[in-house]
Amino acid sequence: MIDEPPRRGGLAELAPAPAVILVRPQMGENIGATARAMLNFGLAELRLVAPRDGWPNPAAEAMASGAVAVLEGAKVFATVEDALADIQFALATTARPREMRLPVVSPEIAAADMAARTDQAQRCAFLFGAERSGLENDEILKTDGIISIPVNPAFASLNLAQAVLVVGYEWSRHHAAQSKNIDDATPAPAPKSDFQNLMAQLFSELDDAGYFFPPEKRTVKERNLTVALARAGLTEGEVRTWRGVIKALASKGRNNERAR
Amino acid sequence: MIDEPPRRGGLAELAPAPAVILVRPQMGENIGATARAMLNFGLAELRLVAPRDGWPNPAAEAMASGAVAVLEGAKVFATVEDALADIQFALATTARPREMRLPVVSPEIAAADMAARTDQAQRCAFLFGAERSGLENDEILKTDGIISIPVNPAFASLNLAQAVLVVGYEWSRHHAAQSKNIDDATPAPAPKSDFQNLMAQLFSELDDAGYFFPPEKRTVKERNLTVALARAGLTEGEVRTWRGVIKALASKGRNNERAR
Repeated sequence: MIDEPPRRGGLAELAPAPAVILVRPQMGENIGATARAMLNFGLAELRLVAPRDGWPNPAAEAMASGAVAVLEGAKVFATVEDALADIQFALATTARPREMRLPVVSPEIAAADMAARTDQAQRCAFLFGAERSGLENDEILKTDGIISIPVNPAFASLNLAQAVLVVGYEWSRHHAAQSKNIDDATPAPAPKSDFQNLMAQLFSELDDAGYFFPPEKRTVKERNLTVALARAGLTEGEVRTWRGVIKALASKGRNNERAR
Repeated sequence: MIDEPPRRGGLAELAPAPAVILVRPQMGENIGATARAMLNFGLAELRLVAPRDGWPNPAAEAMASGAVAVLEGAKVFATVEDALADIQFALATTARPREMRLPVVSPEIAAADMAARTDQAQRCAFLFGAERSGLENDEILKTDGIISIPVNPAFASLNLAQAVLVVGYEWSRHHAAQSKNIDDATPAPAPKSDFQNLMAQLFSELDDAGYFFPPEKRTVKERNLTVALARAGLTEGEVRTWRGVIKALASKGRNNERAR
């Protein structure tokens, strides 16, 4: 997944998703990197408020790589108010402003709220400020609340595209709640009787090898072996494999004797 | 928060956290960006396996900015096995490999598990492959499972530092939640080197017993045995017990001969 060459496009099949609004973005590279971060998590609608270097921006395109379609679809606005005109619910990703009583939520809470709203076809947006100067107070006030990303207080240095990445990841995670962490690859454990037969075979061979000595420790030893191996959740095939392993090991000494 | 000049350092006050292991990283810039992504979310221990351009790397330092302390503390290893030797629980962030039945989990599930383990002072690690080539199958097999980041299937282009960012963000989120559901009964797994030694002993005895026939099936057989037993997460004590079991089984025939 990491740095695989992306297929171009990927916009057509995307479900309704919040817009990403960049306010007074400075570096074209950051706009391009934002487009990539967005598209990774199914965000395709980009809005730009007064981009410093105008629009379109070749530096953004160079950085966007396979996500250039996001840039081509970007709309430019003069003010935050214009960019938000048709939006029904917006959250600003920014440091917590002083003297403002807007709700401040985690990316997780914001994403859950936003996902529920986009599922109801509400028009939503995430707002991000300029690289260094951030958002003006009266711009923040035009949104419904603030997303605060919980970074290490001693080292808070998320760049613009990284902040978009975290917010996009959270939105995608909640939006795709149908894929509820289903792990199709988790193998189905064997029936308990299979597992018990495996342990019985093991104990029988160990008994034969004089492993259970002194006899009063036998119960504890058997229990410890069972507890440890049970955690593996062996499949039917794996139980068969391990029975073969025990058989091979147990007959090893005998075979060696025979070969002499 | 965005692009604020970070205060230098920020390592001293960090709680125990998983290590980040980069396997054969290529671009120094990506190592530096990884250090920044790590420190944003409280990860400070970096391990490098065979970095392409050697170590230290000026390009990494230039990119790391305020996170250069992470680079200064980085340790370099020759192999994944070496880097994992003292680690008790490791997850690899990679595309889902074919023909391998390792558990595959979301970043969220992985982070919750990892946060609970770090709270119990288990030594944990996140493993990341090289920028394009990723991880080898036998490297993945040395971990306990795979983290799959749910990106847009039509545009999957997370770079190395972005993958670290998402995983670090999730770990931080769960760690900060103070893992209220700690299961103290979860036994601490043995260091990976102990487990590798156990498997080496088993393979050696099986080899001796003629189990690996025909020889071309050996790799698959070894892999299947490793995957199944790794899921048990054997403790140090359990590893010792199972080594005793293998020894007892393998010497069984001989003992019987002697007793006659």
